[in-house]
Amino acid sequence: MKQIKGGVTAAKGFKAASTAAGIKYKDRTDMAMIYSEVPCAVAGTFTTNIVKAAPVKWDQHVVYDSKKAQAVIVNAGIANACTGEEGMGYCKATAEKVNKLLQIPTDEVLVASTGVIGMQLPIDRICAGVETMVPQLNGDIESGHNAALAIMTTDTHEKEVAVEIELSGKTVTIGGMCKGSGMIHPNMCTMLSFVTTDAAISQELLLEALKADVEDTYNMISVDGDTSTNDTCLLLANGMAENTKITEKNADYETFTKALRFVNETLAKQMAGDGEGATALFEVKVIGAETKEQAKILSKSVITSSLTKAAIYGHDANWGRILCAMGYSGAQFDPEKVDLFFESAAGKMQIIKDGVAVDYSEEEATKILSEPAVTAIADIKMGAAQATAWGCDLTYDYVKINADYRS
Amino acid sequence: MKQIKGGVTAAKGFKAASTAAGIKYKDRTDMAMIYSEVPCAVAGTFTTNIVKAAPVKWDQHVVYDSKKAQAVIVNAGIANACTGEEGMGYCKATAEKVNKLLQIPTDEVLVASTGVIGMQLPIDRICAGVETMVPQLNGDIESGHNAALAIMTTDTHEKEVAVEIELSGKTVTIGGMCKGSGMIHPNMCTMLSFVTTDAAISQELLLEALKADVEDTYNMISVDGDTSTNDTCLLLANGMAENTKITEKNADYETFTKALRFVNETLAKQMAGDGEGATALFEVKVIGAETKEQAKILSKSVITSSLTKAAIYGHDANWGRILCAMGYSGAQFDPEKVDLFFESAAGKMQIIKDGVAVDYSEEEATKILSEPAVTAIADIKMGAAQATAWGCDLTYDYVKINADYRS
Repeated sequence: MKQIKGGVTAAKGFKAASTAAGIKYKDRTDMAMIYSEVPCAVAGTFTTNIVKAAPVKWDQHVVYDSKKAQAVIVNAGIANACTGEEGMGYCKATAEKVNKLLQIPTDEVLVASTGVIGMQLPIDRICAGVETMVPQLNGDIESGHNAALAIMTTDTHEKEVAVEIELSGKTVTIGGMCKGSGMIHPNMCTMLSFVTTDAAISQELLLEALKADVEDTYNMISVDGDTSTNDTCLLLANGMAENTKITEKNADYETFTKALRFVNETLAKQMAGDGEGATALFEVKVIGAETKEQAKILSKSVITSSLTKAAIYGHDANWGRILCAMGYSGAQFDPEKVDLFFESAAGKMQIIKDGVAVDYSEEEATKILSEPAVTAIADIKMGAAQATAWGCDLTYDYVKINADYRS
Repeated sequence: MKQIKGGVTAAKGFKAASTAAGIKYKDRTDMAMIYSEVPCAVAGTFTTNIVKAAPVKWDQHVVYDSKKAQAVIVNAGIANACTGEEGMGYCKATAEKVNKLLQIPTDEVLVASTGVIGMQLPIDRICAGVETMVPQLNGDIESGHNAALAIMTTDTHEKEVAVEIELSGKTVTIGGMCKGSGMIHPNMCTMLSFVTTDAAISQELLLEALKADVEDTYNMISVDGDTSTNDTCLLLANGMAENTKITEKNADYETFTKALRFVNETLAKQMAGDGEGATALFEVKVIGAETKEQAKILSKSVITSSLTKAAIYGHDANWGRILCAMGYSGAQFDPEKVDLFFESAAGKMQIIKDGVAVDYSEEEATKILSEPAVTAIADIKMGAAQATAWGCDLTYDYVKINADYRS
């Protein structure tokens, strides 16, 4: 596997475009489009929130009924959630516009929205945006990059990744983009994430590969504990790499899923590290667990603890909060057996041995915790299972962004 | 029932004292003591966190084995949590000191600590504090008030309440004090809360009454989603009101539990409203639920949502976040049937009807949300059950307090 430049346009046959449609933001792009020269097998995972945005319902129909797709239309600024029948109608109107311009069946057009809940989309501007983007569709790296910029809301930078692998003598590419950065506590899938590949693979296996990944990547990050109404992760495979089509769990499937995991984990970590107001990526590894599930519950409880997140912002080795968050997680363990370590580019040090503080240097710990990516490792000494979760620190800017998001 | 002035010394036979023992804070009191002239029936509820502070383990033994108590020693600054055998030894040493001075059996002395996790108590200063307080024990209102001040950590004001009721021709008093104000997400009981009464009542009924209350009061508040290692609620009844002893669920029990509920609910609300950095008490009522449990899950999910809390800080009627938090709570309901209202001293207004925004005035909504106590009422139109949860807004000061708590 080789990491390469690019995002959603890295794989063969995928094009992208973006435009400033004036949905809600001024002076920036706010719509993006992904298009494949040929129809794709499509997999998707969606929010488990009972309150599901209209585009989520629309895309579920595309993924589970049509099972293929050829275009994705995304807008930032308005989420099209809690918008009733009117909101559903706008998904359809968007797909109809694409159908008219590109002759793609409406139920093979995916839509995704992110932004304020409860407002209706200005559908005229959405349709005008589609009209502007279609003639600009381009397969170069820059077009994919601009699409990643256009879907941002409170994100501070675009998020992309792409890799190449070899399958049955052919070069296969997987590339993706995603956006955060608030209301991030994916439960099934994350905010908006779009992954494209030119691999030839059956829709069943594509869905299975994506579902497995989502559990260990997007579902293991949290910015603020709020599971959005719009979480959507889409994976499109157009087969243009001309590899022998993957229809069973063979060596090619292994290679493909390993690369896909890298792409999804990279995007998930980018999202966590760019959480609203965040100054640091906070990684929590629980090792020595009896089961993976137990390690997941424990690590996720720590990255969602407001107190721990605030301590990370303060570069404060307040390990009691970490042990406390493990304690209320619901998972069983013996607090008096826990060893805890902090690690970053500045070094690694042990903080707790068997549940009690070792004689560590606070100064040294603060140095380790002052890096832009910080890891806490908790060894609960019960078995060989482990899990990792990713979050970020809690800062003044998180409050600032969210006290005044709509205005 | 009549509300009266006072707190833990309001009931007959209860005395209190406080002192500046220099545990961790400078220039303020940080130890308090409650004492009853005669032994009390005692009830207690404690944190469900697996990581339990030493005083929690000590008090559980007193409540469940001794079943009576005559003194409580409290310190602020250090939590005596994650302190191993040494920490347990300090609970015992504190009780032994009280035993020596007041001849109370050590297993009838309760202890409680709040503050930083992982540091050992300076036991010499704790014992010196006890020695200072014993001769100062006093049953006046001021001594109770000073005790409520001494147990504060990041609280901005002391929290007290007292009421009088009549039972079998005798005046019975219930009074209490508590402290917050971070790591507040009680699950079984809250931080530190101490309630005293001169009622004569059996220990079994006292425990039952307290457990029922805790479910609907302390367990329904949240400041930051973090369930502490030290949560403790203690209720002492010394029988000095000389009412006919309550040993069954008769009319007196009804009167007593109603008054107790008022005391506990008042303390819980004081705690929520004084959450770390808070500028407003945020109350969420879910009505029209099928079951109380469902209403509890929904209301608690809203008050713990960081995004909703930040919106309340910004006086922003960002109702989508409320519906979103209900949606990911795990409780079932139909989002398209929800009506939502905001209410405060400035008025009441409807925001959503059947899951979609009504044509409300943002200006008017902001006015309602600018009061120091704000209520959101969600009617899910499924039945007649309801529940209320209390929280606070999320502010810059919450981050400030917690990024730098230990230094």
